[in-house]
Amino acid sequence: MKLPIGFQTSGVSANIKASGKKDVGLIHSSFPLYWAVTSTQNEVRAPFIFRNLSRYATGQAVHGVIVNSGNANCANGDQGVWDNEDFAGSAAHALSYGRVQDMLSASTGIIGHRLPVDKVRACLPALTAGLSDDSDDFAEAILTTDTKTKQVGATLTGGARIVGVAKGSGMVHPNMATMLAFVMTDAAIPQTTLRELWPQLIDRSFNQVTVDGDTSPNDTAMLFSSHQVGANAQEFAEALDEVCQRLAKKIARDGEGATKLMTVNVHNARSSEEARRAARAVARSSLVKAAAHGNDPNWGRILVAVGSANVVFDKGGLHIKIQGTTVYKGTPQTFDAESLSKQMDSEDLIIDIDLAAGVRTGTAWGCDLTAEYVSINADYHT
Amino acid sequence: MKLPIGFQTSGVSANIKASGKKDVGLIHSSFPLYWAVTSTQNEVRAPFIFRNLSRYATGQAVHGVIVNSGNANCANGDQGVWDNEDFAGSAAHALSYGRVQDMLSASTGIIGHRLPVDKVRACLPALTAGLSDDSDDFAEAILTTDTKTKQVGATLTGGARIVGVAKGSGMVHPNMATMLAFVMTDAAIPQTTLRELWPQLIDRSFNQVTVDGDTSPNDTAMLFSSHQVGANAQEFAEALDEVCQRLAKKIARDGEGATKLMTVNVHNARSSEEARRAARAVARSSLVKAAAHGNDPNWGRILVAVGSANVVFDKGGLHIKIQGTTVYKGTPQTFDAESLSKQMDSEDLIIDIDLAAGVRTGTAWGCDLTAEYVSINADYHT
Repeated sequence: MKLPIGFQTSGVSANIKASGKKDVGLIHSSFPLYWAVTSTQNEVRAPFIFRNLSRYATGQAVHGVIVNSGNANCANGDQGVWDNEDFAGSAAHALSYGRVQDMLSASTGIIGHRLPVDKVRACLPALTAGLSDDSDDFAEAILTTDTKTKQVGATLTGGARIVGVAKGSGMVHPNMATMLAFVMTDAAIPQTTLRELWPQLIDRSFNQVTVDGDTSPNDTAMLFSSHQVGANAQEFAEALDEVCQRLAKKIARDGEGATKLMTVNVHNARSSEEARRAARAVARSSLVKAAAHGNDPNWGRILVAVGSANVVFDKGGLHIKIQGTTVYKGTPQTFDAESLSKQMDSEDLIIDIDLAAGVRTGTAWGCDLTAEYVSINADYHT
Repeated sequence: MKLPIGFQTSGVSANIKASGKKDVGLIHSSFPLYWAVTSTQNEVRAPFIFRNLSRYATGQAVHGVIVNSGNANCANGDQGVWDNEDFAGSAAHALSYGRVQDMLSASTGIIGHRLPVDKVRACLPALTAGLSDDSDDFAEAILTTDTKTKQVGATLTGGARIVGVAKGSGMVHPNMATMLAFVMTDAAIPQTTLRELWPQLIDRSFNQVTVDGDTSPNDTAMLFSSHQVGANAQEFAEALDEVCQRLAKKIARDGEGATKLMTVNVHNARSSEEARRAARAVARSSLVKAAAHGNDPNWGRILVAVGSANVVFDKGGLHIKIQGTTVYKGTPQTFDAESLSKQMDSEDLIIDIDLAAGVRTGTAWGCDLTAEYVSINADYHT
């Protein structure tokens, strides 16, 4: 996908992955980039998370980020901290930036194995030589067990563009933890605005994706702006929101072993937070996920998942729809189960829940639970 | 199993279950029973939960409980409330108690279908005629998808006895929600003591069992005493604690599709609550459960699950053992993965986690995640 003005990316293989697939990617801009970041809430965090947050706290611009897949560089003690410094620093040097802090870093892959920084150094000439205004190689280089690349673009009035690239959240063996997202724009939006907006949009998109309920020590979403093209802040915010939500959906649809995307819309909640929490509880439930896989219009499991979400709802007014068909409205409703099951046999399953408690809405995205998920995550020996 | 003095139980088929298996059980004592109850925290609750809690609030004794399996009588609106009154009342009348409130009730099974109270009434002569001092029929009558009955007994100095009967927490299709436990004793312990003790022991036992992370609208644990035999309160408390924990383990081991019991012990936490929460987070993790199934000593998943539990731990001192072998201690440890994997190929998997943050301990019990679980919960059509 063509990048916004001022951005170049690349992706090559450094042989971190045994498969020989691309595993190191670079985002670079010769313009100082305004940026924002949100990262995992897990108490176990990879060193790059802390390094990026230190830079964030200074408020200073950066020139890009180097990313590797195949190794999370997490839980490696002090060694991991030094290796991450070398990792980011090597990219800064290759691009001739005097301050290593001008380059951020991110890693995803196996936990508890040393990051082979020498291999990264060896691939840097190819990585920098490969920089182009197309995001495809980068999108490929950050994948772990994803089955496809995830890229989304948008163009604003006036020509400013937004391009987002992400990798999925399936935590595959041994610990291909991590959802990573990088969104680039040339829209000239002040950094203060970017930083205010970003966590809000993350809460409505990436934080609403659940594959298996397990969080990762490396989850990170970054937003970069080269501020080269004038743009309306409101239009930008709306377009960015949509880019994030479309990326989030791609991640859920490509969850480990998944055969369908499950969208859970919660309506008329007391607050947006409660709406999102209820939606997540339903999308996360193993029983709902298994029913989704079996095309079973099992509203009881949805009801009970809402009941476990610690949100306010009107028991008499609670309304559940599956693929648009009302299955529960205060009491069980009569419906044609066989016909509804056939409608559920689709790559897109939509569940609507009306809490009848307020006016706020929220959505979560998940996937079905399959024997393939168990197989991916069990049939391995360390 | 032989019941404590003053108790009689029975179990028959009322044809609520299509299989014709036993589905109505009765616990009865002609002595007024001191009792205690804890029940589900899910916002969706079956009517019997509220009815029992109303009786609990009066502090008055009861003469027993009628229980059915195959139908949860949940989410049936006002009709469900009336049906539950009829259900409990019919048992009180059959036993010639003038006050229907003298009998408690409990249900487990499919959600959203009317309880066939007529069928229950028709079986009452057989149910009351079958009352005996043995718990086997009752233990069978409360099962849903459990593969075996769950009964545990203990005898105190002086001859007082405790007998506990439970059914599992696998939530099978369409909603065989519910963990039910009934513990009977003839130990002469004051009701105030029973009621103080019960929730504490539940927090250390039944509340520490996780099969799929989904709570049920019917979960209930009841304790009854006929107070016929003198007993030491401290010895009673310890024996009751053990009975509850042994029942909890039986439930986890018999989780849907499970091939092994996973015991997660957390040591040196800041508080008992944090220890239990960390243990639950590990036992609940789909990734840890899948690794357990695959005999994969994947300590990274355990570490990350602890990191998600919102508990305090010392990152440098955190110590993880699998089947007694240290796999992580601040940094990854060298171990023989092949040999450890062989040791994990057992019906009992034990994970020890030292948080190095305090002096409290906690344990949770779970089971492995198998393709069979997915199959049980997906391959059905409502």
